Formats: sequence, C-alpha cells, structure tokens
Amino acid sequence: MARVKSLFLKAIILPILLTLPLSAPGAPPPRNFIVMIADGCGSEQYTLARWYKGAPLALDTMAVGQVRTYIANSVIADSAPAATAFATGVRSGQRVIGMAPAETTLPGLPAPAEPYRPLATVAEGARLAGKSVGLVATSRLSHATPAAYLAHVPSRYQESDIMEQMLHQGATVLLGGGRRLCLPQAQGGKRGDGQDLWARLSGRGYQLPRSAEELAQAKPGKVAGFFAGSHLAAEIDRPTLAPGQPTLEAMTAKALEILDANPKGFFLMVEGSQIDWACHANDPAHLIGDLLMFDRAVQVALDFAKKDGHTLVLAFSDHNTGGMTLGNASTQIDYMTTGLEQMLAPLRAMRMSAPAIWRTMGDNPNPVKLRRALREHWGAAVSPSEAQAMIAAASQAKLYPKKYEPWFGVGEIFCRSHTVVGWTTHGHTGGDVPLFAYGPGSPHGTLDGPQLGRFTAQALGLDLKALSQRLFVEAQQAFGPERVSLRQEASGQRVVEIRRQGGAARLPLNQNRLLLDGREIALEGVVVYAEPTGKIYLPRQAVELIKAPKP
Amino acid sequence: MARVKSLFLKAIILPILLTLPLSAPGAPPPRNFIVMIADGCGSEQYTLARWYKGAPLALDTMAVGQVRTYIANSVIADSAPAATAFATGVRSGQRVIGMAPAETTLPGLPAPAEPYRPLATVAEGARLAGKSVGLVATSRLSHATPAAYLAHVPSRYQESDIMEQMLHQGATVLLGGGRRLCLPQAQGGKRGDGQDLWARLSGRGYQLPRSAEELAQAKPGKVAGFFAGSHLAAEIDRPTLAPGQPTLEAMTAKALEILDANPKGFFLMVEGSQIDWACHANDPAHLIGDLLMFDRAVQVALDFAKKDGHTLVLAFSDHNTGGMTLGNASTQIDYMTTGLEQMLAPLRAMRMSAPAIWRTMGDNPNPVKLRRALREHWGAAVSPSEAQAMIAAASQAKLYPKKYEPWFGVGEIFCRSHTVVGWTTHGHTGGDVPLFAYGPGSPHGTLDGPQLGRFTAQALGLDLKALSQRLFVEAQQAFGPERVSLRQEASGQRVVEIRRQGGAARLPLNQNRLLLDGREIALEGVVVYAEPTGKIYLPRQAVELIKAPKP
Repeated sequence: MARVKSLFLKAIILPILLTLPLSAPGAPPPRNFIVMIADGCGSEQYTLARWYKGAPLALDTMAVGQVRTYIANSVIADSAPAATAFATGVRSGQRVIGMAPAETTLPGLPAPAEPYRPLATVAEGARLAGKSVGLVATSRLSHATPAAYLAHVPSRYQESDIMEQMLHQGATVLLGGGRRLCLPQAQGGKRGDGQDLWARLSGRGYQLPRSAEELAQAKPGKVAGFFAGSHLAAEIDRPTLAPGQPTLEAMTAKALEILDANPKGFFLMVEGSQIDWACHANDPAHLIGDLLMFDRAVQVALDFAKKDGHTLVLAFSDHNTGGMTLGNASTQIDYMTTGLEQMLAPLRAMRMSAPAIWRTMGDNPNPVKLRRALREHWGAAVSPSEAQAMIAAASQAKLYPKKYEPWFGVGEIFCRSHTVVGWTTHGHTGGDVPLFAYGPGSPHGTLDGPQLGRFTAQALGLDLKALSQRLFVEAQQAFGPERVSLRQEASGQRVVEIRRQGGAARLPLNQNRLLLDGREIALEGVVVYAEPTGKIYLPRQAVELIKAPKP
Repeated sequence: MARVKSLFLKAIILPILLTLPLSAPGAPPPRNFIVMIADGCGSEQYTLARWYKGAPLALDTMAVGQVRTYIANSVIADSAPAATAFATGVRSGQRVIGMAPAETTLPGLPAPAEPYRPLATVAEGARLAGKSVGLVATSRLSHATPAAYLAHVPSRYQESDIMEQMLHQGATVLLGGGRRLCLPQAQGGKRGDGQDLWARLSGRGYQLPRSAEELAQAKPGKVAGFFAGSHLAAEIDRPTLAPGQPTLEAMTAKALEILDANPKGFFLMVEGSQIDWACHANDPAHLIGDLLMFDRAVQVALDFAKKDGHTLVLAFSDHNTGGMTLGNASTQIDYMTTGLEQMLAPLRAMRMSAPAIWRTMGDNPNPVKLRRALREHWGAAVSPSEAQAMIAAASQAKLYPKKYEPWFGVGEIFCRSHTVVGWTTHGHTGGDVPLFAYGPGSPHGTLDGPQLGRFTAQALGLDLKALSQRLFVEAQQAFGPERVSLRQEASGQRVVEIRRQGGAARLPLNQNRLLLDGREIALEGVVVYAEPTGKIYLPRQAVELIKAPKP
C-alpha cells in the first residue's frame, strides 16, 4: 500500500507540472470568461451530433486537448464535485457543492485540512472584482453544475439552500429552471421556509421573465429568468411540450447582451444540463437534441468572442455518461461498411425523449401502451418481448431512487437492436473528455478539473485562497462557540445569531444579509452552514461589522 | 436525399477550412517527422492505462485536439483506409492499402476519379527527398497500418504482395513481425512465389536481426528486423512466451539511433498494433500492456524530439475499438464511489492475454480447462455458467472468420461481472479520438485522417499529387494495352512484360526492378497491380527508360 500511495502521489501531483496551460507570457488577461459545460458528454457523443447536424460543430475548431475527470473519492466523477473543481480549483468528493471534500479516498490525495470548508468560486471572485456574473442552464439552476459556481452546501440534494444562496450572490444573469425552489409551498413552490425569494429578487431590481418572449424583452440590468417550475424541457420535446421556453441558444445570447454592458467584463457559465440525462437514459435522439442546442450556444459564445477579442471561451464536460459509441454488438462484424443512413435513419425517426414517452403511459405503464408510444414517437416496431423487458427494467427505479429512472430500460433495449449506437452503462464513466477553447490565453494539453478551476481563476486575476479567507470566516472560531447559535424561526427559515452587547446580530442562513442594530446590511457573500461539522461561515466583512464598537 | 447530400457536402468539405493545422507562418519545417499510431485506442483506454501506470502518460503533455475517423464507405473506420489517409492524404475505402477507394458511399464524398489508383505516400515522398524512412510495428509489418505507408494493393489481405512491395522501397529501418512472408514455402515461409526476399534484403546490404539481442547490436546502415514469423507477442505475454523479442520501446530507440544518421532527416512511423486487438477481444490487461509500452515508445520519441529540436512528433489512433469505458452496468448505481483499487485489482491479477489463455486449452477447449486457466492466469474464479458462455461464444469464430476470434467471449463475459470496465462491441467504433503532438509546427484542433496525411506531407515539403504522377504511370495507357502483359512464372512470381523493339522489358510485380536489355535497373518506386481494374502502374522513370531509344 505504501508503494501504491507513493505512485499515486506522482499521479496526482505531477500533472500540475506537466501540462501547459496559459497564454504567451505577458499577454493581457481576457476581460470576459465564458465556461460552456456539456454535462456528461464524451468524444463519441460529439461525433454522433456532428453527423446528425451534417456539418462541423462550432466546437470543432476549438479542440485543444483533454480533461481528466476523477474526484476525491472516485475514479468516476459526480457532477457536483466535478463542477466544484471547475469553480474553486479544489478536488472535492461526491455530492459536495462549493466546499472541500469530507474525505479523500483515492490514494495519494492529501486529506482535506478542513472537511466541508466553503471555497470561494471564480464567479464570486469575478463579482468581487467588479465583473458581472451570469449562469445559464437547462436544468433547475440549483442543480449540481450551476450550483457549484454560486453555492456552498455539503450535498447537492439541498436544493432549497442552494437556490437561496444563488439568489443572494448578486449575479447579473440567472437563466434556467427551478422556479418552484424560489417560492413557498403556500404559493405552489417547494420552499419549506415560507420565503418568497421571487419577491426578494423583484425588490432587488431583477427583471423576472418567465417565457422566451419575456426574456427577449429583457433590458440591460439584472435578470433572473425561471422558465419552468423544475427543469426546462428536453430540447427534443421543447417545441411541442414547452414552446414558451427559451432555447439554450437564446438564453446564452441574451446573457451575453446583458453582461456585455459592464466595461469591467463578465464571467458566464452555460450548461447543457440534459446531455447527461439523455446519456443516463441511453436515449440518443434526446442526446442529439440537447448537444446540438449546446453547440449552437457555443456558436453564439464563439461569435461574441471573435467580435470582442477580449473573451476567452472554454468548453468541456465534467465526465462521460453512458459510454456511448457509434457501433455496438450489431455492428461488430460488418462495422467497416456502416452507412450514414443506417446510423441516422432510426435516430431521425425518434421525435420525443424517453421520459416524455414514459409519461404518455400515465400511471400504469404496460408493454401494449409502450409499443404504441414507440411506434408513434420513435417510428419503431419493438417486439412484445422487448416492450416487456423495457417495462420490467422500471422496477429498478424503486430500488435505486435518483439513480435509475423508470424509462432507462427503454433506450437501452431499443438501441441494442434498432440502432448502431452502443452504451456501457446508465451511470457516468471515468475516461478523459475533450477540451475546447478559443480566445486570448487559451490552454492546451491535458488538464484535470482543479487545474481548469485554477486556470480560470488565474485568467481572471483571482487569488481564490485569499478570497476563501475573505468570504468564509468560521463564526464559532471568530466569536467563540458560546456566542453563536442557529435558530429556526416559526416560518421554517433558519437564522444565525451572534450574541453581542446591545443585542444579537442576526444573519439569515444562505443569504447575504446582516441584521444589526436595526439596520440591514448587504454582505459581499452568503452565510453558509456545513451541517456535518456544525460550522457556520460568514464573510469577514460581517465579522468585522459585528465586532466593531458601536458608533 | 438531395438535401441530405448537400448537407453532407458541407460535412466533408468544410472541416478543411475550419481546422487550424500548421505552424506559425514562416517557421522552418521540421527535419524529422515521427508518426506514432495507437491502433484502436479511444479516450477511455488512455485513461485506464494512466491509472494503471500510476503517473501521467508521456502523451498527456502532447494533447492538442481530436481526430475524425470515418472512411469513404463507412462512418466506422477500417485500419487499412484509415492508415491510407494518414499516409496519402486521401480518404479511401474498406480494406484498401495505399490506393484510391473503389467507390465512395458516404453522402457528399466525390466518386474516385480512378478507382484503385495507387497514391504516393509520405514515406515514399520522404525517401525521394533524401530522407531516411523507418517503419516499426508489433504486428506483421505487412499488416494494414504499416502497409499503407509503403505498399499499394486493393486489399489488406494481400499480405504477400504487401511485404514484397515494402521490402523493395528502400526503407532504412523495418522492424516488427512477419518473417514468414519473406520466405518461400520450401523454407517454412508463406510465399507462394518461391522468392526468398530475405536473401534479397541481405544482398541489398540490410542487417537482419532476429532477436532483441541482435537488434541491440545493429550498426548504422539498413536494418530489416523480423522478430517473429507472424505477429510479435502481446506485451503482457512477451516476457514469458517470447523473451527474445524486442519491445516496441527498444525498436523505437534503435530506429531513431539509425535514422538520425541521415543529415537530411527522416520519416518514422511507429505502431502499437495490438492495442486494437486487445480491444477487439475486450481484454483490458492485454490492452494496458500494449498501450503502456506504446507510451514508452512515445516517451523515447518525445525525448529525442526535445533534444533534437527539429523533430515533429504526432500521435493518434485510427479509430476506437471496443468502446471501452471505466464504468459498466455494475457501476451504474454507485459510480461516484468507484475506488482505484476496486478498478485496478482485478486487472493487476490478469497476467496473460486472452488469446494466450485460449491456446493453453489446446485443441479441445472446454469450461473446465477454461476455469482452471482463468484461475491460474487471471487470478479469478469464474462461475461454471460464465465459463460455459465463454466457450459457447467461440462458435461465432467459425461463422465470422477474421472478424470474431474464439477468445472474444472470454474478456467480454469476464469484464461484465469481474471488473468495472465496460465494452460496447468487439468491432471498431466511429467516435473522434485524441490527437497528440510535439515539436515545431504542431497542429491543433479537429483534423480527420486525410487532413493528417496532407499535414504530414506539407510539413515534409512534399507535393503528393505530383509524386503520385511520378511514381504511378498506368502502363497500359503509356504503352498501349496490347504491349503490356502480366505473366506468371513457373515459380509463381508475376512479372510485367512490356513488348518493345529489341526484346521485352520485364518488371517483377511489387518490386522496384526493371530488367532491360540485359541490365537490371533499380527504380525509384515499385510496380503495382490493381487487380479489380486490371491496371498496372510503373514509375515514370521506368516508362522513360523503356521508351528511350537504345544507346
């Protein structure tokens, strides 16, 4: 084991020395930084999308290397720690958002100095440096990847906390899904703390478009556009099932239009969130729809960057999902005569995502309904035994909630004999994924997630370590544990109280508000709670204000 | 269909404009050019090898983009046309070596102007420009990839013709397997034409090492090292089953030592041939052995290039094989806690390639023998039903000769439940593969096979179109069909005869020899026969000599 450890120390430390990021020495740093994340996309997925498009991808001209994807406790990544690495430069562990890992189990990785310590992100740093910040996704904005740029919680599943933090970070543009996480249950929302964050956003001057049409009318200024209660529709379903929702392309274009108003520049993250879900479901047409839409968003970013000249665009994935290949057991003998139509025709006939097909069956899915739905929406005649197997697979969804969806068997079994597309898993896979870049100081070579995060920070001129010290002071240490308490109000909202002479200071958890001596002070960062350690973190600014003698 | 065609015209034509190959304008061209081909290797295979090594790969610092892999008649490549593209800059079709395709079936590709027209290669061009040429492989040298650099035949399976051409091309270094293809059947060889090409090589001053030891002693000058009758051993088997064979690393080092003696520089192609076969067999330990050895050869090339300063190294694959992923159905629920030991331990216990294990069972493989062999050589207890399924799979080998080997079921079934490695197929797959480069004028971006070939030619200062005109003049057209005949001698050797006043000129097929007026003249290229069209091609030099008035 000792030998293994020393080997892996090399494995993890050396890449930092060996890769060749960064620009020509002395080149001016980019003013704007755009990160485009194709969640769950490996090499062969890009190839399939290119063939379906029938022309090169916008990404094709930008290929510059590859990304290693492992996390602190697994050779196969989870989106939460992967995005945490991109956002903070630190390799974290499963489920963790914007914090140090609980532990590191891969050999050679140092144990975290402080488990679940919040880590400043490139988005927070950009904002403190006077740049505008934007996040765009087709998932709920509180989903793992966007979350890691503006939130700090031990688990990605704390979406109520995540959304609250994200809405208190002073972002200029927030576009995606998840409206229900902004509203209290009384208003049809999901919040158990009675808060109407929508009203708070409005109070802070945000425009709140709820449709593509309203988004198009948004003016320069702050915009928080939530276009669905939960996730946006799959791109393949959007035109029919949710025609009022904007595309990722439209959201990206609007984000750039608004962010570009800041002469100090901006940081924008755009995620093609559902590429990953399509691959989890082994659902190639859903994949193609979302990946080609992602590539159109890349084209928008690329066009902007080319015109602007001071914008760096990075595009990459957090990991491969599904292990898709062009070729499967049905092609293993005659692969060298696989025609383009042979590959594309069955995919072109697929006009609906697998989850949407599943939902057409209502509460009682059965093989007869499924065969009918697949004939109608995928133009395919699956056999009764195939339909039976697809329905039977759904039982795994009960065994593995959040890990296996009822419709996973549909794409898996369909692809085997009706397409030339292969899949190895419904989970993520651990291989390197392509790296794309355009603009001043583009990196190249083999980078891992933390290196991409540090590269981003460096290009933005940020010292993330110093920023973490500035944004996250442990309250119990700063004031003494006896003076710090976390109270839950009748509404369900939790508030940090710091006892002091002349009345307690109060800081609502997950917000950037300090209530002190009857005043409300907007803080430069949010109040964070690491439940597993019981530690509460405040911006240093708050500590200084609370400790300051009364005027 | 018309619409599809026009779309695909874009697909195939546009990349040429959009990618960004070549160096800074005005940079001097590299003196030496090394192409390293990891046959059949996709992204996730590199990742697995890196983890097994426990340190970054030599390739990691060289990642610069990606390679598109389709061929003229398939979205999934065959090694023969893929290597033809690298060598000639032209997209060819299944099985074709160093020639135009028979036809193009992918939409948007122009039909070949002359089916099976031989195409000059970068190796031939380098040699004509005064550089030394070397080819190194762990397969028979007449196998598809090395063949495409120095041979021109309609089918990769014409290995007797291929080897004959390769040995008459004036290469300085040829290292690999395939000795039997140099010798007549009477001497234990495979040649049906009675020729002892070994003797010819000796007569032309080649050193002929037959072992690692003899290779080490080779002096500057020409070297043709054949270290096995057929292919070299899999790297995982070499130390035990073929300890006298040199490694790919040793062959690469010796090739560089010898080639570097030419002040005009050299062109070297090195292939890790068996990475592909390991992936065909879904055999991860075999894959790791050959891929890490390939990476050691890359390190040798990289060290040379760094020291030399005038050497460009490109490394890439012709296609992915097997669609391997880190992750399979067994990890699809808990992938985010996949430990390194969980992944590596079963692979470390594998100490023999699947074909070698298969051979331990002799002529009558059965589940009992197989379970015993897997216990001994893979340290694994497979169940009786698994062993039964592995043996049963072998029946496919009879159905699909050359496409399915009897041992393919062993790795496939083993990996499913004894490893976290997934595979989608025993064939090739159609996805993009990584591109690696180091040295002056390194390319970057997304390039396809023909672009890599044209890039190589450009870097070497070659005009391959002009070279094709110079090396391959159609004999029937030059002399009139009535004057040209192809005769088979009693030995089985085929000879082209051109009737002329004062006696016929004779040119043995696949050789660079012109027999004219009692003289033997060494030609600057080989005589090529495109059997499907009946056309014979000669170097223009031969045509001029034959047409010249007698002195």
